[in-house]
Amino acid sequence: MSGLFLSFEGIDGSGKSTQARLLAETLRASGRAVTLTREPGGSPGAEEIRRLVLEGTADRWSAETEILLFTAARRDHLEKTVRPALARGEVVICDRFADSSRVFQGLTRGDLIATVDRLHDLMIATEPDLTLLIDLEPALGLARATARAGKEMRFEDMGLAFQEKARAGFLALARRFPARFRVIDGADGQDRVARAVLAAVAPLL
Amino acid sequence: MSGLFLSFEGIDGSGKSTQARLLAETLRASGRAVTLTREPGGSPGAEEIRRLVLEGTADRWSAETEILLFTAARRDHLEKTVRPALARGEVVICDRFADSSRVFQGLTRGDLIATVDRLHDLMIATEPDLTLLIDLEPALGLARATARAGKEMRFEDMGLAFQEKARAGFLALARRFPARFRVIDGADGQDRVARAVLAAVAPLL
Repeated sequence: MSGLFLSFEGIDGSGKSTQARLLAETLRASGRAVTLTREPGGSPGAEEIRRLVLEGTADRWSAETEILLFTAARRDHLEKTVRPALARGEVVICDRFADSSRVFQGLTRGDLIATVDRLHDLMIATEPDLTLLIDLEPALGLARATARAGKEMRFEDMGLAFQEKARAGFLALARRFPARFRVIDGADGQDRVARAVLAAVAPLL
Repeated sequence: MSGLFLSFEGIDGSGKSTQARLLAETLRASGRAVTLTREPGGSPGAEEIRRLVLEGTADRWSAETEILLFTAARRDHLEKTVRPALARGEVVICDRFADSSRVFQGLTRGDLIATVDRLHDLMIATEPDLTLLIDLEPALGLARATARAGKEMRFEDMGLAFQEKARAGFLALARRFPARFRVIDGADGQDRVARAVLAAVAPLL
């Protein structure tokens, strides 16, 4: 693959989606071809699987079935969107990738991290060249996300204890994959965070 | 699990669905509680995944994504339909199970049988107590299936060469799992086949 594969990870409200968009704009302005995409979803088939997983009640699918559906969506996204863009030499910027599955499934039950990893090794076997973890105090992320989503925010997704565990999960992954991860302080102003992101990406361009 | 888990396998037109139904009727008439189910599908969630896989063009999903979706459907079917019925002590009769995935994915590309097996070991890890393979000459199966389905039959599913490979695939599985498989001659009349099925099942009741 001749392109560059970047992922953004972090808790809800960390600003990672904004930073992914800003990085895409900056790189495009400098003349690079960029594919900005997201998970779950990112290809027509994967978006359909995303709807199948997210609609209905929370206990509609077991954790194991959900992992299989998310892995199916990731495989389709990889085949139809990510790999073709990398083959064209583009920079692919992905808002969440496999690390989000590791963290969020692991919060349901710790043993599921191993299940996610085994399925990943068997059916995905691809990691980003660089993962930008936008790290933020959960209280600040919660306030930002609640302000953005308003009253539709679901408590179980956004509770402070949940976000604290998710933050710890992402930081544990950064320690597990130190060569791939860069931890960026998300508490800074948007422009300062964007500069830190660009400084982390620049050596790979 | 205190119940009995039976699967029927075979090429299209072999009569396996009819035999599954006849066995269910016979066992119910003798006072046994029976759950008659099928794959892909067999639970509300799995039926939705089935529709997602089967609708659209044939190349909509890659073979690998399709295996993940079918495994997700099987996991849901197992959790929501098969295991609860076995826990109630019922006889579960399933029209197609994992062996169909092994055969039909293996026909696409031989290396996919190993992928199906690894996913199965990781996420399903359940085999029927007994698998009844209704074995039939493909030419006879094709004539039966075409008569039943009429002009809507898709050629790629029903071509004779394809069915011959599928038959060979099922017979290879019967050799691989001799303790679990019983090969029943499907060329006999319906009643004789039903008696052979019952004779194979009786020792387990």
